[in-house]
Amino acid sequence: MTSSALQTAVTEIAEEMAAREDRGDVASYIPELGRIDPRQFAISVVTRDGEIACGGDCDTAFSIQSISKVFTLTLALGIAGDRVWNRVGREPSGSPFNSIVQLEREKGIPRNPFINAGAIAVTDLVLAGHQPREAIGEILRFMQFLADDDAIFIDRNVALSENATGFNNRALANFMKGFGVLENEVEHVLGVYFHHCAIAMTCRQLALAGRFLAHNGVRPETGYSVVTPERARRINAIMLTCGHYDGSGEFAYRVGLPGKSGVGGGILAIVPGKASVCVWSPGLDVTGNSHLGRIALELLTSRLGWTVFGPGAV
Amino acid sequence: MTSSALQTAVTEIAEEMAAREDRGDVASYIPELGRIDPRQFAISVVTRDGEIACGGDCDTAFSIQSISKVFTLTLALGIAGDRVWNRVGREPSGSPFNSIVQLEREKGIPRNPFINAGAIAVTDLVLAGHQPREAIGEILRFMQFLADDDAIFIDRNVALSENATGFNNRALANFMKGFGVLENEVEHVLGVYFHHCAIAMTCRQLALAGRFLAHNGVRPETGYSVVTPERARRINAIMLTCGHYDGSGEFAYRVGLPGKSGVGGGILAIVPGKASVCVWSPGLDVTGNSHLGRIALELLTSRLGWTVFGPGAV
Amino acid sequence: MTSSALQTAVTEIAEEMAAREDRGDVASYIPELGRIDPRQFAISVVTRDGEIACGGDCDTAFSIQSISKVFTLTLALGIAGDRVWNRVGREPSGSPFNSIVQLEREKGIPRNPFINAGAIAVTDLVLAGHQPREAIGEILRFMQFLADDDAIFIDRNVALSENATGFNNRALANFMKGFGVLENEVEHVLGVYFHHCAIAMTCRQLALAGRFLAHNGVRPETGYSVVTPERARRINAIMLTCGHYDGSGEFAYRVGLPGKSGVGGGILAIVPGKASVCVWSPGLDVTGNSHLGRIALELLTSRLGWTVFGPGAV
Amino acid sequence: MTSSALQTAVTEIAEEMAAREDRGDVASYIPELGRIDPRQFAISVVTRDGEIACGGDCDTAFSIQSISKVFTLTLALGIAGDRVWNRVGREPSGSPFNSIVQLEREKGIPRNPFINAGAIAVTDLVLAGHQPREAIGEILRFMQFLADDDAIFIDRNVALSENATGFNNRALANFMKGFGVLENEVEHVLGVYFHHCAIAMTCRQLALAGRFLAHNGVRPETGYSVVTPERARRINAIMLTCGHYDGSGEFAYRVGLPGKSGVGGGILAIVPGKASVCVWSPGLDVTGNSHLGRIALELLTSRLGWTVFGPGAV
Repeated sequence: MTSSALQTAVTEIAEEMAAREDRGDVASYIPELGRIDPRQFAISVVTRDGEIACGGDCDTAFSIQSISKVFTLTLALGIAGDRVWNRVGREPSGSPFNSIVQLEREKGIPRNPFINAGAIAVTDLVLAGHQPREAIGEILRFMQFLADDDAIFIDRNVALSENATGFNNRALANFMKGFGVLENEVEHVLGVYFHHCAIAMTCRQLALAGRFLAHNGVRPETGYSVVTPERARRINAIMLTCGHYDGSGEFAYRVGLPGKSGVGGGILAIVPGKASVCVWSPGLDVTGNSHLGRIALELLTSRLGWTVFGPGAV
Repeated sequence: MTSSALQTAVTEIAEEMAAREDRGDVASYIPELGRIDPRQFAISVVTRDGEIACGGDCDTAFSIQSISKVFTLTLALGIAGDRVWNRVGREPSGSPFNSIVQLEREKGIPRNPFINAGAIAVTDLVLAGHQPREAIGEILRFMQFLADDDAIFIDRNVALSENATGFNNRALANFMKGFGVLENEVEHVLGVYFHHCAIAMTCRQLALAGRFLAHNGVRPETGYSVVTPERARRINAIMLTCGHYDGSGEFAYRVGLPGKSGVGGGILAIVPGKASVCVWSPGLDVTGNSHLGRIALELLTSRLGWTVFGPGAV
Repeated sequence: MTSSALQTAVTEIAEEMAAREDRGDVASYIPELGRIDPRQFAISVVTRDGEIACGGDCDTAFSIQSISKVFTLTLALGIAGDRVWNRVGREPSGSPFNSIVQLEREKGIPRNPFINAGAIAVTDLVLAGHQPREAIGEILRFMQFLADDDAIFIDRNVALSENATGFNNRALANFMKGFGVLENEVEHVLGVYFHHCAIAMTCRQLALAGRFLAHNGVRPETGYSVVTPERARRINAIMLTCGHYDGSGEFAYRVGLPGKSGVGGGILAIVPGKASVCVWSPGLDVTGNSHLGRIALELLTSRLGWTVFGPGAV
Repeated sequence: MTSSALQTAVTEIAEEMAAREDRGDVASYIPELGRIDPRQFAISVVTRDGEIACGGDCDTAFSIQSISKVFTLTLALGIAGDRVWNRVGREPSGSPFNSIVQLEREKGIPRNPFINAGAIAVTDLVLAGHQPREAIGEILRFMQFLADDDAIFIDRNVALSENATGFNNRALANFMKGFGVLENEVEHVLGVYFHHCAIAMTCRQLALAGRFLAHNGVRPETGYSVVTPERARRINAIMLTCGHYDGSGEFAYRVGLPGKSGVGGGILAIVPGKASVCVWSPGLDVTGNSHLGRIALELLTSRLGWTVFGPGAV
């Protein structure tokens, strides 16, 4: 594929998305997110060779929300290794993102690191006895490092907004604490969790940050190894089976790539060996995933033959 | 990869598996299956070029059980097209293979075509008003065609054994019938279901039958198109997210390929663009999937770099 | 209370009920019941002294449906004694009458004998290896004996209608059979179950049949002991906690008496030491209990001070 | 019954209980309660005439825990009337005392006021915008008034112990807050809740406090009306159907009286028109109810013919 072909596809998709009327609903349960203009759309693709194709508002920062869970999982695996899996499972949940039912049935062990409960358990491992402020700093610096951009910041208004209204996450965290699954104080864990969800990034930055997952754990432009090849593949596997809450099967069926969505409307998708992709549109579908984001990825992968499920990807 | 490298890997894995003491437990809830010797193991790989590498008991026929669900889904999509998705979902269930809880919550619509309830709903679509005998014949001929082997047969003792003890499946089918999800008579649907689960095949035959899923829907040796490339990819996607019941996440994490297991101890795995693989060992793990089969696949994919989640596959 | 006071209360209540427009919805899932005229209402009270006060259509036979569960439980306790409680619990279910979720969680043991699954398990104990025809005859004769009326009959059209459409009950029975909770053949148990639910009785007959529960297990006019005093009390206890499916708490709160409803629109209520009461009106509320029947009982108990929860009853 | 007959029964039961080896397990999840000596037992009965029969350690104060829920419900009904039922249901839960599953399914509305979630919702209504300190004072004064004993106190160590370890209750409260079921701040509501659960009373005091429920809402020795007769009956109804968590059916079946247990090992039982009874023994059964307490009540009611389900009570 020539670089112009990629840019052409990206540009066309951005135009098609701009023209659509169906945009889903902006997440309202975090007041600060409810104010975002739903007409925005962005797409960024970073290839192995370092080409960056962008369309739409791809230098507008948005709240990455649950996409941060991919990166805190990466950090926690570095800190705790496979001990992570004593605290959280690796199976799809068959439930909405904030369900507490499964936790009661399975003694406080969340099904996977990408539902809220699981990400809170992972955050507890990243915190690991440090001060919340230190852990927040470490996560932010990791994002800046991966995207090679010190301008990435935490939107404190979003973090405060989530803290003020995060009753469901507080319930999940206390419930797990009651089962002994969290080691640190609940409020400390939640403080870190709300802050890493409130990291603000552009599509361009997120696509850059995801590169190591597409390339055997290595940032291809520097050759720097972030994680082992096996670990990169396994994070991709969890993204594919669990990355879109109770819409994970649908995403695999339609898009056919590992991906992780956030209620801010972003989706990070990985094309193993080829590219790291980020799309963003604030309106969500009923499963809490970006409505236009998913459609844009479906168009992109269909046009470029990017899927892990067919020879087209190979 | 040279052909001898593949055969060497397969032979080594068969030897390693033969030496292991941990073999899981043979499924006992179908009396006829409970009598199988757990010390058996087989592995067959068919590449794009038509090379067949075999190890262990790969010409011993076993009960394919739930692996048949991949092929009845393929047939149902051919008969009913996307109407299939009005009757069955595409999401992982987060529950064991025979759970009825989800059906009650979701008005009789099974979560996916690879749990028992979903496969029964798919069988209803294949039956489509015909006589059970005709539908059974059609499914059997489809398997014979795909594997290019008329010797494939249905083990009627297994079918009778399942019919006599299949109370749980009978409960699932009646429950869905109560919600109007099945169109045909419950006993007719179950008759067809029990018979296609009782198809007996060897590892070699199953690996041959799976080729179209690895090659864009086409049987590579003949160029015959079984399904469209898009449909082949989507069946693979469902296999990856839902193919191992409540162990699907684990299989994706460890093996990294679309796959479908059966309680007879078989697993069919697809390496998109490269190969179709079948392993068999009758002992099951706690999630009902072949214990040594999964381990063998993990070894194979690790040695050959076969995974959909990394550049190794690409 | 003078006998005229009781008859006056009953007459007034029948008139008030006749005048109401809100009547609930007739059960439609059993086609034969769906044809009943919802404008009917009846009430019968039989006191310790043998006085019978009647209002409305109290000599019109209706399908007793789940009210039969009180009497099959009584028979099963006579046949199997406390072994009944190895097969069925004594706790409210917190679920609708036909829920299968609880059965999966609790290994096929129904929560209590008054939900469908529990009554099917009780019917299995009454069947006890006999022919279905014999068990059906025994249950019918028991009802005739208790009401002292050989005219009581089984409406075979209702039984056939339930058999033809009883997919949910067939699912429950097969599910329990899969857990080994039923000893007899599923279709035999269901045959008996559908027939005892299809017994047709008038309000007068049902109030007479319930006398032993109000009077320490004894039919007061003859002194004949049907069950021990302790067993009569305990059946009343289960009626109070479990007699109205997921509306049992509401019934206890509003009416304050042990009672058992059926989807035919009947309710049998027991005033310990004082009276046996039956009301009937075919329209049901959202929990599947007779809408006007419950209101009529609330009026009756309020006017007469009949409640087990206050000194009025004592 | 002569007064000596009652005292004889009470004395005998206390002796029988002292001799038993089976004592259940002291609640360990509240550390402060885990230190209680399990060999203690007490029983107190207060009749309509004011006779008080006592046996065992009936002047030893213990933590009343969930028994307080009867009294906060009484207060909340006085404050908010039937608006209470917009926040909490009246149905048995079919679940353990601390289950959060039902809350998720039913949008944050607890099934009844006697499971933890329901009692927290009731406490929110008692708090009603006041300072926690004032609400705690009001509840304590209500208990002192009902028992006519100003010595009743709150054990602050128990309250602190519950606060420090009450993760599950904190999860429940936050979960309800997320659904908008609580109006006050979560920590304020929990502060009041933990304190009223930590009220320390003797069996004698609790039996005295319960009199109004046995006597149409009136304290019989003074004629003072605490609640209307209808409300007293209805509180009794809820105690009978929901007073023992997932052992409520069993308690109704064996004891046959409205009752409310606490994990401190106390049970308050009401004999409508006759008596108020309190038993205490710290060891619990698997459903979290006092093991010997329930047995003692079964003996008492059996010997005295006290049951709401038979003519013996009438």
